[in-house]
Amino acid sequence: MKLPLAEVQALVASFLQRAGATPAMAQSTARALVLAESQGQGGHGLSRVAQYATHLRNGRANGQAVPRILRRKGAALVVDAGEGLAFPACDLAVAAAIGAARELGVAMAGVVRSHHCGVLVDHLRAVAAAGMVGLGFANSPAAMPAAGGRHPIFGTNPVAAAFPRRDADPLLIDLSLSEVARGKVAVAAKEGRPIPLGWALDAQGQPTTDAKAALAGSMLPLGAVSSPKGAMLALVVELLVTAVIGAQFGFEASSFFVDEGNRPGIGQAFIVIDPGALAGHSGGAAGSSYLTRVEVLVAEMLKDEGVRLPGARREALRRQAEQDGLEVAEALFASWRG
Amino acid sequence: MKLPLAEVQALVASFLQRAGATPAMAQSTARALVLAESQGQGGHGLSRVAQYATHLRNGRANGQAVPRILRRKGAALVVDAGEGLAFPACDLAVAAAIGAARELGVAMAGVVRSHHCGVLVDHLRAVAAAGMVGLGFANSPAAMPAAGGRHPIFGTNPVAAAFPRRDADPLLIDLSLSEVARGKVAVAAKEGRPIPLGWALDAQGQPTTDAKAALAGSMLPLGAVSSPKGAMLALVVELLVTAVIGAQFGFEASSFFVDEGNRPGIGQAFIVIDPGALAGHSGGAAGSSYLTRVEVLVAEMLKDEGVRLPGARREALRRQAEQDGLEVAEALFASWRG
Repeated sequence: MKLPLAEVQALVASFLQRAGATPAMAQSTARALVLAESQGQGGHGLSRVAQYATHLRNGRANGQAVPRILRRKGAALVVDAGEGLAFPACDLAVAAAIGAARELGVAMAGVVRSHHCGVLVDHLRAVAAAGMVGLGFANSPAAMPAAGGRHPIFGTNPVAAAFPRRDADPLLIDLSLSEVARGKVAVAAKEGRPIPLGWALDAQGQPTTDAKAALAGSMLPLGAVSSPKGAMLALVVELLVTAVIGAQFGFEASSFFVDEGNRPGIGQAFIVIDPGALAGHSGGAAGSSYLTRVEVLVAEMLKDEGVRLPGARREALRRQAEQDGLEVAEALFASWRG
Repeated sequence: MKLPLAEVQALVASFLQRAGATPAMAQSTARALVLAESQGQGGHGLSRVAQYATHLRNGRANGQAVPRILRRKGAALVVDAGEGLAFPACDLAVAAAIGAARELGVAMAGVVRSHHCGVLVDHLRAVAAAGMVGLGFANSPAAMPAAGGRHPIFGTNPVAAAFPRRDADPLLIDLSLSEVARGKVAVAAKEGRPIPLGWALDAQGQPTTDAKAALAGSMLPLGAVSSPKGAMLALVVELLVTAVIGAQFGFEASSFFVDEGNRPGIGQAFIVIDPGALAGHSGGAAGSSYLTRVEVLVAEMLKDEGVRLPGARREALRRQAEQDGLEVAEALFASWRG
């Protein structure tokens, strides 16, 4: 059945609240999951509602947590998510970083004692809306080995960036640092198909083309078949959101996909940059040097017919969903009402 | 012949000065090139001396440039390299960013109207020595297409990071965002060998295994054979060092490997983070939470025998060269004395 976005959001929020979330946490989380689903990012959308509710009920997430700024110095700050769901803490961190970057040109906000943050780049939409550039980093439960290693240490550790444009949707970039998403391996295993070399290792840390063996092993970093570059980027992300801001390592966190397990305590980090403080303005806001130059690059990219701007597909889907509503399976709908 | 590092540095500096560089530019550049060579990074080492000298003589680099802070707001600043060689400008930018991060927790410094910056991570050694974490980004003359594109737009756009450790060498990460270095294609072309699909496109923008055709075309971004992730990362780097800080795009710059051409005007950007302002301290400098946690991650990584820490090989080579001196070909030596 198709339901208006607002109705789905209200249903999900009410369901999460009954599972133990504060009204603020439930609202922020429901908004993020509906936004993800509306963009075609189902893996971070409504499929997560039941998982989050289970974590709230079994104590893997603290539904009563109220995020707060734990530490602040100049343009750097850390938000304590209090072991609750990640969304209200990320909202607070991004808002504080935007304020600090407006004053100081650049700012960095970390979120610690956190949980799954959904579509990373969505947290940067507020940054682009404020006319600034955002970078996002997150770790996740261990799924990939270090370069040359055999056992999972890093999460698939996504990187995101948002760049505002003049009179157009922002450029939205969001990618995990694994060669492919684990979901692709799961589909191959279900269909009994082999996977290409370079996607995964088996439980003994050996390269495998057996999808079932891969599910018991670990995913490989981006481009691992030819170089350690992907693994090195995963290391950089891991350190930024753990040692640097104070969150737990991916290898210290239980999987999100099991009911039992610890409070993951992983982290997110956001860097907000005011281009006006750097490239400057060439005559007021309308004459922003940044906005003019972004359009020069976009025009150069679009000279090749095959090029699609990052975020364009998401935004088209989101607009469609705002108009048509969101497809929600009857069973899912029933489970939220239950 | 083997020469002590200091002697090579003095020779190179004197040669660059005779080619038109100020004493300060010549010193800073010679130090960087010798450091690169001593780490086994020959492509950014002594092989560049003749190229830089040619650029100084033919006006592609302004030898009389004196870098200065062009703009500053809070924790954000831009250094104008004045179209000189990049090294003194990067030195100034990094030093200013370290000072700002010490005061404000995080800082970003851009370098505009710049030139080839050599080994990107070497600029972050001063950051690690100050007990802080550094990120580096640089663009370079166009060599890679956008995702789905056919003509070169982005440089191979390196990313670097430096993380200090307690009583150990810092972790030094430095990678270009191309699948392989162009040098590998050049070697294959010379030896008449084919290259794997996924390394390059020909001049028509078609995938090729012909090394000679690839040299006339463009390099492919990291992992391009399976996803646009590498191209998206190259786009992020390109925007950070151009639209955001004010430098020229890679597609606006002539290749470094031709004598004639424009002043490239490309850029570098550095982000410096004080972990003490974020993760905080658990009891004075010796009790830095950051330093303790880095060692936890390093120990977990080293549980797998095949894992080598990033930067370890460079540092071993550098120590060896400090002890044994640097191998300099007679012809090269003669050309500098000439």
